[in-house]
Amino acid sequence: MMKTEKLEGAARTAALADLTAAGWEHDATRDAIAKTFRFKSFNAAFGWMTRVAIEAEKRNHHPEWRNVWNRVEVVLTTHSADGLTHLDVVLAEAMDRFAKD
Amino acid sequence: MMKTEKLEGAARTAALADLTAAGWEHDATRDAIAKTFRFKSFNAAFGWMTRVAIEAEKRNHHPEWRNVWNRVEVVLTTHSADGLTHLDVVLAEAMDRFAKD
Repeated sequence: MMKTEKLEGAARTAALADLTAAGWEHDATRDAIAKTFRFKSFNAAFGWMTRVAIEAEKRNHHPEWRNVWNRVEVVLTTHSADGLTHLDVVLAEAMDRFAKD
Repeated sequence: MMKTEKLEGAARTAALADLTAAGWEHDATRDAIAKTFRFKSFNAAFGWMTRVAIEAEKRNHHPEWRNVWNRVEVVLTTHSADGLTHLDVVLAEAMDRFAKD
């Protein structure tokens, strides 16, 4: 399997600008992105998590996440690349898209 | 809905003894119990979480939990009772039972 490369240069700048505009925060220490999603209920939160889990498994790229009732705190980074990669951007976008449904 | 009472006295002592024997740790500060579950894969971890989520929703009692790939860190307490109740014991037992399947 091809190793996923860490985002660099203009691609990285553009990705971080888009993510920040969508409400993601960049943690420079870990080179990770974080966002808290809130839903109407536990049922809605876990339904969203299930959709994300299927997407994550399909891409073999998984979030760190914490759920307390209607709230899900997500952290994304790529351990094998020691920072943000295209996989994090794609999973972040999927999470935002599913949260809008 | 009847308020769930905080565990007290002999019932509490017995419950905590059983939970500790099953690998749960008691956090006295919050009067909560905590355990880390490990699975073969993300798929197995999230499958277990899904079973627990259905049980939690049925009982209207939900965990605080954090998942990183094959690992799930769980904290149980009853916010409305400001400590451990029978609901936490029942959910802890269900988690242990599902993890053995």
